[in-house]
Amino acid sequence: MSNLGKNKKLILAKYPNGLTKLDDFLTQELDIPELGNNELLVQTHYVGVDAALRLIVRNSDEFLFRVMPGDIIHGNIAGEVIASNNNDFKIGEFVTGALGVQSYSISDGNDLEKCDLNLSSLSTWLGGFGVSGLTAYFALFDVCKPQPGETVLITGAAGAVGSMAGQFAKLAGARVIGTTSSKEKCDWLVNELGYDVAINYNDENWFEKLEAAAPDRLNIIFDNTGGSVMNEALKLIAMHGVVLLCGSTSQYYEDQMSGPSNYIWLGSMRARLQGFVIFDYAERYEEARKKMSYWISNGSLKLPEFICKGDIDEFPDTFSKLFDGKNMGKMLLKLPVAK
Amino acid sequence: MSNLGKNKKLILAKYPNGLTKLDDFLTQELDIPELGNNELLVQTHYVGVDAALRLIVRNSDEFLFRVMPGDIIHGNIAGEVIASNNNDFKIGEFVTGALGVQSYSISDGNDLEKCDLNLSSLSTWLGGFGVSGLTAYFALFDVCKPQPGETVLITGAAGAVGSMAGQFAKLAGARVIGTTSSKEKCDWLVNELGYDVAINYNDENWFEKLEAAAPDRLNIIFDNTGGSVMNEALKLIAMHGVVLLCGSTSQYYEDQMSGPSNYIWLGSMRARLQGFVIFDYAERYEEARKKMSYWISNGSLKLPEFICKGDIDEFPDTFSKLFDGKNMGKMLLKLPVAK
Repeated sequence: MSNLGKNKKLILAKYPNGLTKLDDFLTQELDIPELGNNELLVQTHYVGVDAALRLIVRNSDEFLFRVMPGDIIHGNIAGEVIASNNNDFKIGEFVTGALGVQSYSISDGNDLEKCDLNLSSLSTWLGGFGVSGLTAYFALFDVCKPQPGETVLITGAAGAVGSMAGQFAKLAGARVIGTTSSKEKCDWLVNELGYDVAINYNDENWFEKLEAAAPDRLNIIFDNTGGSVMNEALKLIAMHGVVLLCGSTSQYYEDQMSGPSNYIWLGSMRARLQGFVIFDYAERYEEARKKMSYWISNGSLKLPEFICKGDIDEFPDTFSKLFDGKNMGKMLLKLPVAK
Repeated sequence: MSNLGKNKKLILAKYPNGLTKLDDFLTQELDIPELGNNELLVQTHYVGVDAALRLIVRNSDEFLFRVMPGDIIHGNIAGEVIASNNNDFKIGEFVTGALGVQSYSISDGNDLEKCDLNLSSLSTWLGGFGVSGLTAYFALFDVCKPQPGETVLITGAAGAVGSMAGQFAKLAGARVIGTTSSKEKCDWLVNELGYDVAINYNDENWFEKLEAAAPDRLNIIFDNTGGSVMNEALKLIAMHGVVLLCGSTSQYYEDQMSGPSNYIWLGSMRARLQGFVIFDYAERYEEARKKMSYWISNGSLKLPEFICKGDIDEFPDTFSKLFDGKNMGKMLLKLPVAK
């Protein structure tokens, strides 16, 4: 496929120490091989910038899935089919899948979903319509099950998942409190996404604010961050409450992760800390997207995106911004090819 | 009630620092007041020696129930009604309740259960038939729900709850592994209680032994101890596993409790850490005791007790032995009056 130029592919250069640095990554430029039987070629338009990546580039054999030095950086992308030997995929169709951080990918189609751009724009198939929004949808409605009048805390409330989960909790009739890292993001949560209360955990008295905002305690803690915010919030868990373990972004880059020392509050409150993985719901993604489309059409749901522009080489810098808490909503890297 | 002599009553002298010491406690000798309307007098025969006491004598306002200096030491007792102005309780009947560590108690009967000594001996109403055994029964059968062939880990396996929970898990058809603190207790778990494997966590390679004993991972972790044993075991939790948060005895006396840093394994394994409080099952105690009686009668259940003899003053020393891990089964203080 020499007419296309080279494939830029992002590689893990070495295991990061703490927050990732630019030289933890390396860009390779490789020829694009000819397609085999049944294969198709995808040109990447958007790359999802997901915090969970930091967990899988750890120098540790503890976790089930792992990226090692020399491996391609794992990542979800959305792009266009530009060549195909596969009858199920036509040139010009748009697809999404975990094809890694690179400008072109070859696939046999099994790891791809088609993106219906009549339903939603391409970028949202990585955000609200993608793993982030689907995680928020199923974790919130199927596991947490908030009831009208209940109080829900979303940690990492302005993130890709949190910004959707809070809106879903409002749609369920709950009172929704979010924690995030700046006043700007607090204002956005309340004014744009309809959070009842947003708290900047960098304020000295943030916990007092949380206590004041939750006089009937917290029926649900939808936890995206772990760390001290989640740990302190555990003291406010309500009877039979649910702490949904969605992410632990504050821990992913720590050499020694720290566990929630207040976990024994789960005991006296008959509460639970519940693990969750979105892939268990793959058969039901359609249902969630239909529901979301309806809510978008009647103005009760937004799919917030934070789009950074750049080529594959810009991914490491963009990823750093994610851990700086720069984003409001789903962070995406938009490649020059995308319109 | 001057004909009975004095009531010996154990008081918290000061908040303990680390493991309790004898001078954290104080015995008072008080006159026994006359009974009021509807009141009855109970003479204590047995006092339950329960690890959870250490949690409620902490110098902390964090927990919902608390014993402060000057307060009576909280404790469950079993004893005999020796005077009564209450039509529901006759002299000579035996009762159990959370009447505190003292030789005589006055009650209006609302906080008491009658002990049917035809069903089981008085001491077992504090152990297997009491809160410890009932906790094991409902937490195991109603929450953990082990299936035949599944693997169950009991931490603190030789303790009051663990020694019952392991037997119940065997009755449910599971493979049962226990962790405890000595070879002697390991042998007892296997030979007397039918555990499949027992592991001394003081052995250097205890975790390798646990891994070897659980090739299909751990469907259930019935956790009585918290701390490093529970934390390491989390790495072996099975898909959709349950970690039952029954107790955290290794943490109760720590200034700074430590949380399980491996809790993120709950995420990838879609597992849960589940709080539990036995009092929610009060309406069903009868059901559990009938089942236990049947299993005792057919030889498939034991109610292990570790009885220490002494008067109320001996309670502090006995309590220290509990945290030394001396007991196999439910630890009880048997007062001189008990036959």
